[in-house]
Amino acid sequence: MPETDGATGTTGGGYEPTARTVPSRSRERARYDRETVHSILDQAYVCHLGFVRDGAPVVLPTLYGRVGETLYVHGSTGSRPLLAAGQADPGLPVCLTVTHVDGLVLARSAFHHSINYRSVIVHGTAYQVTDEAERRMALDALVDHVVPGRSADSRPANAKELAATAVIRLDLNEVSAKLRTGGPNDEPEDMGLPYWSGVVPVAPVHGTPIPADDLAPGIATPDYLAAL
Amino acid sequence: MPETDGATGTTGGGYEPTARTVPSRSRERARYDRETVHSILDQAYVCHLGFVRDGAPVVLPTLYGRVGETLYVHGSTGSRPLLAAGQADPGLPVCLTVTHVDGLVLARSAFHHSINYRSVIVHGTAYQVTDEAERRMALDALVDHVVPGRSADSRPANAKELAATAVIRLDLNEVSAKLRTGGPNDEPEDMGLPYWSGVVPVAPVHGTPIPADDLAPGIATPDYLAAL
Repeated sequence: MPETDGATGTTGGGYEPTARTVPSRSRERARYDRETVHSILDQAYVCHLGFVRDGAPVVLPTLYGRVGETLYVHGSTGSRPLLAAGQADPGLPVCLTVTHVDGLVLARSAFHHSINYRSVIVHGTAYQVTDEAERRMALDALVDHVVPGRSADSRPANAKELAATAVIRLDLNEVSAKLRTGGPNDEPEDMGLPYWSGVVPVAPVHGTPIPADDLAPGIATPDYLAAL
Repeated sequence: MPETDGATGTTGGGYEPTARTVPSRSRERARYDRETVHSILDQAYVCHLGFVRDGAPVVLPTLYGRVGETLYVHGSTGSRPLLAAGQADPGLPVCLTVTHVDGLVLARSAFHHSINYRSVIVHGTAYQVTDEAERRMALDALVDHVVPGRSADSRPANAKELAATAVIRLDLNEVSAKLRTGGPNDEPEDMGLPYWSGVVPVAPVHGTPIPADDLAPGIATPDYLAAL
């Protein structure tokens, strides 16, 4: 982790905690260093993007990509949040959350049941990206987020596809990670209870790639899929 | 699926589509039947709960449980959304979203990259649960949501723990599921391109249960963990 970060000018490599990014409980689980935040963001496939529409909250699952200290989300130019980000002035307030479930925590008491998890919550304002070079970079990042190295091994978007795609950006400024690890935290007086206690690990696993029905003969499964 | 549902009086077993639950795009992926919605809700461990605080969206990952046509979320009595649901009159507008990632869809064109997923979005108003019997039922449902059968094999909450726990309920009325399955949808003119195309399946896998460090000798791993 660098001592200073050129992109934001903050020192120590971390995000500055704010009233919104300090949790109201379990503060010892919060993290603000970029390494932890980036790692959690880079390992998930979907984020949950929250915004306000007609005064009510909306939470949509969507793909995303990260380039340095910026997240990109894309969608049809007809999609509601992306339209809102383009129309809103000055931008669309959003909350973007990413969560990994790492384990089921079974305590002796019902009360102390929990899960081990890693999450990142980003508060900020999303803006539509209009610069053509940035839009192309963002779309590459979105594809490479799903499968690293894939954007270079597929047909790039053409003019028609680019015109049909809206891209919004959200800078990583007001950001926190939160995580729970380890075993159950039972009360001392519960230790003698006759209930099994421990953790069941959970992790996503990739299956064997399934070629498209109409895949032309002679096209081998690419090496970058083996690295997933 | 029953012809009529006693809880809501609707016929046909499905949720009535509303302006908020008809997607602005890919409408063919939307589902409104209870069987699909319940199945997606019951298989996930965390939901993403969205609400509005000081005019801005907040999205928090949290555990939940389902009892019939009601979802329950719990937390510390000091947690922000749960406090808000208790103080707000008439309740707290929320959007609760659950998403499964089932596969990475690699198309020949960058534009048609996607993921296979199943999601449920619930719009509604959350209310604090004050009835003691409903609170206990909700807490059992939350534990059994993580591991079916577990609430009967752990110490129930005592009076102090119950007092420290806030429970909110969200009825399943304005609900939709959305899902994508199958292979990539490439353009006909891209079929001859020399890029591998297909789907990489993704699924959560449970590892071998890890007993707590201080688990008393002689307590065997319960059978219900083998069923996960």
